[in-house]
Amino acid sequence: MKNDNTICAISTPQGVGGISVIRMSGEEAFDICDKVFVSASGKKVAGQKGYSVLFGKIADGEKTIDEVLVSVFRAPHSFTGENSVEISCHGSMYIQQEILRLLISNGASLAKNGEFTQRAFMNGKMDLSQAEAVADLIASQSAAAHRLAMSQMRGDFSNELLKLRAKLLDFTSLIELELDFSEEDVEFADRTQLQQLLKEIDEKISSLIRSFEAGNALKNGIPVAIVGETNAGKSTLLNALVGEERAIVSDIHGTTRDVIEDTVNINGTLFRFVDTAGIRDTSDKIENLGIERSFQAIEKASIVLWIINSLRYESSMEWLQEKILPRAQGKKLVLVLNKIDKLDDNEIQALRTHFDSQTTPYIVISAKNKQQIDSLKDMLYQTAQIPEFGENDIIVTNVRHFEALRNAQEALNRVSEGMRNGISGDFVSQDIRECLHYLGEITGAITTDEILGNIFSKFCIGK
Amino acid sequence: MKNDNTICAISTPQGVGGISVIRMSGEEAFDICDKVFVSASGKKVAGQKGYSVLFGKIADGEKTIDEVLVSVFRAPHSFTGENSVEISCHGSMYIQQEILRLLISNGASLAKNGEFTQRAFMNGKMDLSQAEAVADLIASQSAAAHRLAMSQMRGDFSNELLKLRAKLLDFTSLIELELDFSEEDVEFADRTQLQQLLKEIDEKISSLIRSFEAGNALKNGIPVAIVGETNAGKSTLLNALVGEERAIVSDIHGTTRDVIEDTVNINGTLFRFVDTAGIRDTSDKIENLGIERSFQAIEKASIVLWIINSLRYESSMEWLQEKILPRAQGKKLVLVLNKIDKLDDNEIQALRTHFDSQTTPYIVISAKNKQQIDSLKDMLYQTAQIPEFGENDIIVTNVRHFEALRNAQEALNRVSEGMRNGISGDFVSQDIRECLHYLGEITGAITTDEILGNIFSKFCIGK
Repeated sequence: MKNDNTICAISTPQGVGGISVIRMSGEEAFDICDKVFVSASGKKVAGQKGYSVLFGKIADGEKTIDEVLVSVFRAPHSFTGENSVEISCHGSMYIQQEILRLLISNGASLAKNGEFTQRAFMNGKMDLSQAEAVADLIASQSAAAHRLAMSQMRGDFSNELLKLRAKLLDFTSLIELELDFSEEDVEFADRTQLQQLLKEIDEKISSLIRSFEAGNALKNGIPVAIVGETNAGKSTLLNALVGEERAIVSDIHGTTRDVIEDTVNINGTLFRFVDTAGIRDTSDKIENLGIERSFQAIEKASIVLWIINSLRYESSMEWLQEKILPRAQGKKLVLVLNKIDKLDDNEIQALRTHFDSQTTPYIVISAKNKQQIDSLKDMLYQTAQIPEFGENDIIVTNVRHFEALRNAQEALNRVSEGMRNGISGDFVSQDIRECLHYLGEITGAITTDEILGNIFSKFCIGK
Repeated sequence: MKNDNTICAISTPQGVGGISVIRMSGEEAFDICDKVFVSASGKKVAGQKGYSVLFGKIADGEKTIDEVLVSVFRAPHSFTGENSVEISCHGSMYIQQEILRLLISNGASLAKNGEFTQRAFMNGKMDLSQAEAVADLIASQSAAAHRLAMSQMRGDFSNELLKLRAKLLDFTSLIELELDFSEEDVEFADRTQLQQLLKEIDEKISSLIRSFEAGNALKNGIPVAIVGETNAGKSTLLNALVGEERAIVSDIHGTTRDVIEDTVNINGTLFRFVDTAGIRDTSDKIENLGIERSFQAIEKASIVLWIINSLRYESSMEWLQEKILPRAQGKKLVLVLNKIDKLDDNEIQALRTHFDSQTTPYIVISAKNKQQIDSLKDMLYQTAQIPEFGENDIIVTNVRHFEALRNAQEALNRVSEGMRNGISGDFVSQDIRECLHYLGEITGAITTDEILGNIFSKFCIGK
């Protein structure tokens, strides 16, 4: 697994800006840099101590490409654990490409997606779940997603897994001790104590598995379906909700997501609004496409906003009752009574009185006049019932980790069952080893090229 | 003009990437950084020597925002000439914004466009034409534009102006010496020598002024109008020309230009293709909009490509003769005989024979099959007649410099005329001072807030 080539890439976001940074890492990093970089002081990169900066120019023969700063990091005290340089140049597309071309023609190769982080993992600078947190951290758009990624990158999750592993090893040693003396038919381990330990481990894994639903929603945004009849004001509401956020969202190009849905940051938590075609207000064409799309959106959502034109809420409520409710089992439903700008105060009061008598939560708004939009946001935040996590709680946010934990739990269940049925310590021990294997997959103690390929291909180039 | 506030900004391109850099400069830069940054080694930024890097974390109270590298630069040995730090963080939008927010809430202010470079100018790190070259360098998309900006940033133009200034001062001293002894009616300066010196200065300024047309075209791209009848295959040709370049162009968002035209880099020189609506092939609606747009494109262009459907070139040539040629005086015209994929070899030969007898340069192509596109590019490059500049030639690329040089030349002409008409040394001296003033405007020896505002507002934030 030794990396004997030196890699380079543009590490800053694509495009034009004041500064761009080109990163190079590997055994030859200093030598290649010295071939193209002439420092103002005459000093060589290879002779510099780590964590120092040189000013000078990158030149292709006689031609100056740019005046740059070169930061020097010596193995193992660098991000990758290898000799590394970071070349800070002017953020022109032309200059970035030219410097990259020059490094490559002097012996570096273009880094693959996430290859710097992969090397950091290979060189023991971080475990696999920490490496994955680097990508999550870069993609984080909200305080909640950021906090989860930061905790994982810091190694909180890894430490938790280490503890679990230690407990499992305790358990194994007790079982295997018995195994050594099996012919003497003694029980060294107190069965109650053993069951107690097993229960503890299982509870911990279960709690991690349970945290995934919320963790995944916090990381990727809580999915909200906005559904309603075609003239209910659905798109006006979406615009009002997204509002000034849209500009920020449109900045986030070049991320790994193919489709960017409209997201809104409410109290530091990302909400992801799934757009749907409006539903037709006639019931004679039940199978039309709009309804199908709405059904799909409802299925993916955890919160369903049913938008109602307040002027004709009766028909809308019938629709809801007949077609939506049966599909929204287990979802959180909020009725949004829109277009109150077209009602007078008495009519609004009558509306409230009517809906107060119902059990479904509702809100009266005017999407057009942006009335009560903030209240709706608060209501969404309350409805989402985001669990209060303490600073030290470990939350699982990654599907891969979730699946590994579930596999570990299954193996553990077999251990439990085996114990109850008094099966041979051999088999119990094998199931425990399987459980350890799955936990090891998370931190990368056990990996395959396929797992690594899957993980790092989702990184951007230059990280 | 003293800057007593500390400024900060995101200096890397907008968006998500592996790394982003936040820059902070000013008297408080170290202290503000130490308020939010905790280095792993426990060292303070304020105690670091220049050109060194610290690893640690940016924290908002208990909450860790990111693990970062902080590069430290001490006044005057920094880009701005002030105490500066560059914080290299993970390239998440959220993290970038949070760090910026944190710096601002601890006393920094958000930098205005180009304010770092403006401070570098104010602190004597570079003159004004060099500062302007920084923006040109960042915007450079081609080898030619890059070379011009690099030469200007290095100070080649500034040195040339210094020499001119020195010559003018020589001249003034001779004139003013006479002035001191004016009552004695002596001529210290040999009139021939004086005229010779004046001629030298004028030639130098004229040569700089002459270099502007080519310099401006090289910097911004040589404008090419693609005009032709509607079914001539104009947009197919444009696509074939732009080809794989389009992806690169679309990366260049967030530059100062509002409209990005289609550009193609041919042999290191940028060509800027001005899109035009097609011209209708009936002559009864002469004043239609398409023709107007084509006329405007022709006016702005230095090269006009007249695209012809080879199957019916006669009518196209009539159009050209009647409507285009009168508007294309002084432009370089190339006939592009398109759609040869619809002709057999004999027909193509006949076409060639016909056009060989004409004087206008032509090329036969198939835009659809991408036949002869490279030949057309070569032809465009030849037609552009890009002057061969030596490494040491000074080329003016900036409208502001061009105008200042023209004003300087006018003043110089008045000196010349005054000398011929034997007007008083007082007046001559005043015109020379005016000439010096205009030259001083270029390097920033003489500036106004308005000039500075105009220049730096065109920079991106963070530079």
